[in-house]
Amino acid sequence: MKLASLKQGGRDGTLIVVSRDLRRGVKVPHIATTLQQAIEQWESARIALDEVYQALNKSGVPNSFVIDVSELASPLPRAFQFLDGSVYLHHMEKARKARGAEMPPNYKTDPLMYQGMSDRFIGPRDAMCIPDESLGLDYEAELAVVLDDVPMGLTANEASGHIKLLMLLNDFTLRTLTRTELPKGFGFMQAKPTSSFSPVAVTPDELGDAWDGEKLDLPIRSSINGEAMGHANTGKDMFFTYPTLIAHAARTRSLSAGTIIGAGAVSNLDASTGYACLAEKRADEELSTGKATTAWLRFGDSVRIEMLDAQGNTIFGAIDNKVARG
Amino acid sequence: MKLASLKQGGRDGTLIVVSRDLRRGVKVPHIATTLQQAIEQWESARIALDEVYQALNKSGVPNSFVIDVSELASPLPRAFQFLDGSVYLHHMEKARKARGAEMPPNYKTDPLMYQGMSDRFIGPRDAMCIPDESLGLDYEAELAVVLDDVPMGLTANEASGHIKLLMLLNDFTLRTLTRTELPKGFGFMQAKPTSSFSPVAVTPDELGDAWDGEKLDLPIRSSINGEAMGHANTGKDMFFTYPTLIAHAARTRSLSAGTIIGAGAVSNLDASTGYACLAEKRADEELSTGKATTAWLRFGDSVRIEMLDAQGNTIFGAIDNKVARG
Repeated sequence: MKLASLKQGGRDGTLIVVSRDLRRGVKVPHIATTLQQAIEQWESARIALDEVYQALNKSGVPNSFVIDVSELASPLPRAFQFLDGSVYLHHMEKARKARGAEMPPNYKTDPLMYQGMSDRFIGPRDAMCIPDESLGLDYEAELAVVLDDVPMGLTANEASGHIKLLMLLNDFTLRTLTRTELPKGFGFMQAKPTSSFSPVAVTPDELGDAWDGEKLDLPIRSSINGEAMGHANTGKDMFFTYPTLIAHAARTRSLSAGTIIGAGAVSNLDASTGYACLAEKRADEELSTGKATTAWLRFGDSVRIEMLDAQGNTIFGAIDNKVARG
Repeated sequence: MKLASLKQGGRDGTLIVVSRDLRRGVKVPHIATTLQQAIEQWESARIALDEVYQALNKSGVPNSFVIDVSELASPLPRAFQFLDGSVYLHHMEKARKARGAEMPPNYKTDPLMYQGMSDRFIGPRDAMCIPDESLGLDYEAELAVVLDDVPMGLTANEASGHIKLLMLLNDFTLRTLTRTELPKGFGFMQAKPTSSFSPVAVTPDELGDAWDGEKLDLPIRSSINGEAMGHANTGKDMFFTYPTLIAHAARTRSLSAGTIIGAGAVSNLDASTGYACLAEKRADEELSTGKATTAWLRFGDSVRIEMLDAQGNTIFGAIDNKVARG
């Protein structure tokens, strides 16, 4: 099943069911008006939403319409919780090397995870507005999951069943500000201004065998102004998987339905898969020539993130944000 | 004006207007069903809510009822954003000394602030459930403000007018886990399980001259099992004030209506004002005798936080949470 939110009806948008080919959508006010509302009563909503989805794919349903991606918000236009891990240690090592920071002592036993801002995500085709190019805007191509209610203290084995939806994520980062914010120990704050998500969120069954309940065995493609940056496999070289991240977050408290969990910029040990952020490319340049030559994102640049299935069809639709002066 | 939320009507509770003496309340579905809804349309909601408030204080209104504090959630039972600063440097110095951490290099120019969890706050009289006493549960008595929509890049001077409500806050902290979480640089995560807020949120005009638009010149009282812990003045010894914290948070992005901003555990240089958390008391014990003798909170302990006006009346009602095994 594929779900999205129209930019209408308020700050939480309007939930629509989207056809598998992403061409048509339909509102479902008799089931739920927002995705947040649906995820809070997921067991009953899922069945009703899936009936609409099957009909939409097969023969169409009354009042369905052609999707205009520019009219979509992120599937959750805002959320009560967004937690982002950093499980591709390869990325973390390079990102830290690039800003002259050490790896934390417990990084192989305790997942790194921060509480991210979630009060207003931008849509998959919205402008990404920042005040100043000198803040060093970078993108991070990630895969994120959406949870139903998770009890405190569950195990990683128990966590997998709480993953109800998956989405792509562009976790924008202001690299210049990581140097002033992170040394304080309190997290990214100013350095993570907002994120965007893919046009649709999908249920795990849409991913077939590629999703094993813990990780997704498919490449995430990113490009800047049409130039390919990388296609690292999100399921490879994960030091911690999604259920482990969920159990880490829930160690001392419950997590409420609608919590989004990311796993950090994807990075594979196989260098031929390229990059899912500029920081790693610049780190490699510094290591090989002593100087980073790739620029951070500039006003007017477009960042595109997408994932194709084995047949070459887009699964989530493409995130494509243009950087603008805010 | 004083506002609260009943634990009914869903995860966001049901908004009520509360009389100045905190004795009576009334639902206002014709204005807004939740506090989040009211703060999102504050300019119009405020006027209508204030009319109800004036009538409730004067001669009563139809359908008002006697308040039972145990039936109240936190004024915002959950929020899309909770940011907590640490502006009482005296507290920060002691807390860091106690866990063997250095002060960050830029602490006098850049406010310390973290993105806190906000998907489920406990109510002012709810049990605070943790899995294990050995996690070192501490309380932090704080004053927090609630904002309407704040644009990116505003100045501290412009920020004061966005403070629409004030509340007391118990920012529970698991001190043992700060030692494993904070060195990673990504914030508190597991070490800040959830928070509770005072029974009511109040508009700045309720505070008279004690609120100067930047800080509140009144003591915050905390006690454990009825034993007084401290009464530090929230407006004294603040290195950064609320408008400065808001401008810091909004440097690279807008802040959505309903954002809660705290300023950290209150701490005055005048030692006779006592403590607003156990960590400082323990730090003083270590400094004077080489060993902390005060225990962290135990199952069954109750933490009470309150603020009285110049006439000795409670302004926000009391937070009073008992610690329980979760």
